[in-house]
Amino acid sequence: MDFPINRIKGGVGAAKGFLTSAIACGIKNPAVERLDLALIHSETPCVSAGTFTTNRVKAAPVKMTQTHVRKGNLRAIVANSGNANACTGMQGIHDARAMADGVAKPLGLKRGEVGVCSTGVIGLPMPMMRIEPHFEKLIDGLARSKGDEVARAIMTSDTRPKELAISFDLGGTRVRLGGCVKGAGMICPSMATMLCFITTDVVISKEDLQRAVLEAVEESFNRITIDGDTSTNDTVLVLANGASGGRRLRRNGPRCRQFREALKWLMLELAKAIVRDGERVTKFVHVKVRGARTYLDAKKVAEAVCKSALVKSSWNGGDPNWGRVLHAVGYSRASIREELIDILYDGTPACTGGLQATTAMEKLRDIAAKPEFEIEIRLNQGSAEYDMYSSDFSPEYIDFNRSEYAYWKQARKDGLV
Amino acid sequence: MDFPINRIKGGVGAAKGFLTSAIACGIKNPAVERLDLALIHSETPCVSAGTFTTNRVKAAPVKMTQTHVRKGNLRAIVANSGNANACTGMQGIHDARAMADGVAKPLGLKRGEVGVCSTGVIGLPMPMMRIEPHFEKLIDGLARSKGDEVARAIMTSDTRPKELAISFDLGGTRVRLGGCVKGAGMICPSMATMLCFITTDVVISKEDLQRAVLEAVEESFNRITIDGDTSTNDTVLVLANGASGGRRLRRNGPRCRQFREALKWLMLELAKAIVRDGERVTKFVHVKVRGARTYLDAKKVAEAVCKSALVKSSWNGGDPNWGRVLHAVGYSRASIREELIDILYDGTPACTGGLQATTAMEKLRDIAAKPEFEIEIRLNQGSAEYDMYSSDFSPEYIDFNRSEYAYWKQARKDGLV
Repeated sequence: MDFPINRIKGGVGAAKGFLTSAIACGIKNPAVERLDLALIHSETPCVSAGTFTTNRVKAAPVKMTQTHVRKGNLRAIVANSGNANACTGMQGIHDARAMADGVAKPLGLKRGEVGVCSTGVIGLPMPMMRIEPHFEKLIDGLARSKGDEVARAIMTSDTRPKELAISFDLGGTRVRLGGCVKGAGMICPSMATMLCFITTDVVISKEDLQRAVLEAVEESFNRITIDGDTSTNDTVLVLANGASGGRRLRRNGPRCRQFREALKWLMLELAKAIVRDGERVTKFVHVKVRGARTYLDAKKVAEAVCKSALVKSSWNGGDPNWGRVLHAVGYSRASIREELIDILYDGTPACTGGLQATTAMEKLRDIAAKPEFEIEIRLNQGSAEYDMYSSDFSPEYIDFNRSEYAYWKQARKDGLV
Repeated sequence: MDFPINRIKGGVGAAKGFLTSAIACGIKNPAVERLDLALIHSETPCVSAGTFTTNRVKAAPVKMTQTHVRKGNLRAIVANSGNANACTGMQGIHDARAMADGVAKPLGLKRGEVGVCSTGVIGLPMPMMRIEPHFEKLIDGLARSKGDEVARAIMTSDTRPKELAISFDLGGTRVRLGGCVKGAGMICPSMATMLCFITTDVVISKEDLQRAVLEAVEESFNRITIDGDTSTNDTVLVLANGASGGRRLRRNGPRCRQFREALKWLMLELAKAIVRDGERVTKFVHVKVRGARTYLDAKKVAEAVCKSALVKSSWNGGDPNWGRVLHAVGYSRASIREELIDILYDGTPACTGGLQATTAMEKLRDIAAKPEFEIEIRLNQGSAEYDMYSSDFSPEYIDFNRSEYAYWKQARKDGLV
């Protein structure tokens, strides 16, 4: 960014006028004490914007929250981990509404002012008997600077909480922007399978916020992939309450552009954090496509390379296998010419004009052995570019995802199936 | 099939008038004695047809053989494993030509009558010094009933040779049809990454043979997937020499339709054999999509389910995770309605109307524990159908594909890089 920012503490609770809370309900397993229900609340009215999964099978809370965001503005978000409330039919809608109502009433809000997000196993009913008795405790817990607890409560297979907050000067007014994400599995372009909550105290219109969110998501969460799957529950929600004071951002004015840049930067940092914490991930690879004929060609090439199981397996082995990269470029359906293509690892040529470069294999191997590296694919046909962030595929990923049978056993104990 | 067939011995060498040979050259590793160079030759002129990879990065032998098939008819095929001769530039073209010439001259053929196929590592030059001295031995070895040796010589990460031959009555004339395949990794629709050679002694025109091949490939090799990757070397070649005698098949006549049906059946059996022998595969899953609005919708759903890393991981664990199947249906971009969808495992409902069926989980788990089972996805919106054959993803697949560094070391020993 071309303006100074300060990293500040507090994550999604860092912006002025926002309170957060998180408690343990035992949603996934009552025997285990871990945070699994979170609440974000603005003391004053907000404008809000969001983007949602493109999967046609949408979880009940996604359907409801999407309507709330379209028709009005959220002032609170309640989120749980341990159950996605997806593929749950009318009961799911009923449960999502009950979650919204559970916090709306005591906070003096309408149902439409509450966003609900769920993440976890698909196809099992929500264990509402373990959630509903705890709304009072959740609301009683509302406080400043509990943002990190929200970040922990939405974790599923994530190994660590992922949050970030910044403050910066916006035309003489100090503003704050903070957020948290969860991700780990099922991460793919067209909305990474994840939840992202961002709050800010800037003064902005709903329309301008929605534009900024769409643009920022396109250049952050839509550019990461872990396993190529897209989930039923992906949601990005951004709340702006104007508590910083100062004049409202003027559309396309310099302050508005500056805010958009900051939002994009924050989302990209959070998106990268998701890849780095991907399920059983050992590598973080930045794939840069350069010199494509069109933007769409560049995107196709990046996506084919970042999603190839063979390419991702070779990353896991630290193998600088440019042949597999080139073969993925070949089946990407982009307009390419094999004999023009260069492939570089951290700037060192591995393939020049479609052929093996003269670089010593040991040098490339040292680069591919690092936990993070860049692969630049130069198509040398035009000037379009695309960047993506991907991870390896590890044997442990599959082992980890082989069975969710434990969920079923717990659900049966609960009398839900 | 609705007519009787006999399974016969001999694989790709079973048809009348075809001779085959296979030898060990040490292409991949001179220290290991295994068959890696094969030859198929018809004693009399043939008509021939083929389909080739849709990858824009095509191996040198693919480019050359594609031209030979377009411009004329093959009478011989020379094939090697251990090196794909892909991403090898002008040297690759030169080497592919040298392989064609190496067998054409002693057999009294033109270069254009020889098809060349290579499979193995990408990006390394062909070790021609280990191939060229052996053409004489290869040709001297030509004999009937060595088809199984051809099937073994084209194996790479395959664990077993895959071949099949049949004979049947075609309007009073006994005809034979036999073939072999290699596959294992990089298998995906739009040409599985594989080689398939089929010979037959029917009397058919080139045009009719090409039609029959295109139709059969569409319903066999284009319907399998192991890892979603498409290779640089995929090739299906079919040679028909007319040695059975009898009248030529009349286009769209009953004998022609019967031959097409037999060819399709043979290719589908060989395609299924590839999936069953996929790299570190433990499950064979037949995915049936029914009741789609359009053929394209049915295909999109089948491909999304068969390629989902999460679905394939759950198959590896024997987990009847219909939620993951449904979420893949959701992101397939097909026109679907969640609340209409039924999912059945071997005919037993797991999901009804988008919700969990009442079937006991133990029953579904017993089905998913089997090495082979069917998943039927009923979209209940129309009458279009699509079938695909897929495998699980195993931790061992990734472990197996982590590194090809050994190839590089051998190539350096050979002075090729």
